Amino acid sequence: MEIEIVSDVFEYNKEHAEVNRQLFSDCKVLVINILSSPGSGKTSLITQSIKRLSNFKIGVIEGDISSTFDAEKIRQYINDVVQINTGGTCHLNASMIEKALKKIDVKNLDIIFIENVGNLICPIGFDLGEDYKILLSSVSEGDDKPVKYPKGFIKSSAILLNKIDLLAVSDFNYSFFENNVRQLNPQSPIMKMSCKTGEGLDNWISWITEKIKKQGNG
Amino acid sequence: MEIEIVSDVFEYNKEHAEVNRQLFSDCKVLVINILSSPGSGKTSLITQSIKRLSNFKIGVIEGDISSTFDAEKIRQYINDVVQINTGGTCHLNASMIEKALKKIDVKNLDIIFIENVGNLICPIGFDLGEDYKILLSSVSEGDDKPVKYPKGFIKSSAILLNKIDLLAVSDFNYSFFENNVRQLNPQSPIMKMSCKTGEGLDNWISWITEKIKKQGNG
Repeated sequence: MEIEIVSDVFEYNKEHAEVNRQLFSDCKVLVINILSSPGSGKTSLITQSIKRLSNFKIGVIEGDISSTFDAEKIRQYINDVVQINTGGTCHLNASMIEKALKKIDVKNLDIIFIENVGNLICPIGFDLGEDYKILLSSVSEGDDKPVKYPKGFIKSSAILLNKIDLLAVSDFNYSFFENNVRQLNPQSPIMKMSCKTGEGLDNWISWITEKIKKQGNG
Repeated sequence: MEIEIVSDVFEYNKEHAEVNRQLFSDCKVLVINILSSPGSGKTSLITQSIKRLSNFKIGVIEGDISSTFDAEKIRQYINDVVQINTGGTCHLNASMIEKALKKIDVKNLDIIFIENVGNLICPIGFDLGEDYKILLSSVSEGDDKPVKYPKGFIKSSAILLNKIDLLAVSDFNYSFFENNVRQLNPQSPIMKMSCKTGEGLDNWISWITEKIKKQGNG
């Protein structure tokens, strides 16, 4: 019984995801759904990206259980920010995104970053209509995350490893991490970075810029 | 409709939680359900605790989406270890625990640590029949976790802040963290520690020892 209900939820979600996808396509906006554990640095990644992508018009949808902390941080840089408070729900779904999109000027944007709820499991199953899912892991979480939480690594179009400034004070084994990611996902790029120091962000910015150009917006 | 189903799931879980609780009570075993984000250090906390609680017989139930990594680490120290692979499910439930308990010698144990799936949201709603839920946060996740993921902080009998060895290289504001925990949960102790260096673990060991004595097992 439980399984049947879950498929209903996914079916319902899929319908709304298609509505979002059509809107994104009509508006020629690149949409990136950012997945990670709590505290991997999603908000820092977004603020760093906004600073470096100043030629583009950017919107952000912030997902959190509660608080408007992250949206307030982002609003220091741009106006098109919506905070979704899920009130306990462990992931964003396409219907939440559909409502949030009414509050930003989608047709005038080049990129929308969706910061999902910090959760390395549940958000992965929910298509939001985005162009790309990316997974943000971090050195301080340990090198075993691909082995223990494989699905997000499999389903993501780019794997970002944040907090490399902590490599010197941690026992994180990068080869172990990389090999395990590669077993799950042979194709997607793995990008090492520190959103704190800025190191390694160039690769990420190139990746995004290339995707925007591909979309015909560059 | 979604909400109705969720309550059915919780009702079903509650029945199994009561079965577990009765067994724990009959066997006079202290059961601690450890909640945290991925990579906060649950397994390190357990291994450090095993080393320091050598007067007690300890069992461990390891919850993970996949892999037997953590159980293998623990088995270097003790025999009574069971790995639950949830195969995608984002939390442990009481029925999984009921099955796992058949594989360890519960009546000869003083303490059972349950390492829940790394997820700061979903596991909190599932009573496993444990005596205490504890929440393990960590410096590298940032000081805003209580504000953004309040429920676990509210529901836990102790709040542990791990990785304090990283305080010097982070912008974690301890007063901010503490004040926010206190607003959510005025009573439960907050214990700072580093499972890497061992700093601060004494408080945790005293807390556990006191709970065992209260249980009549000390």
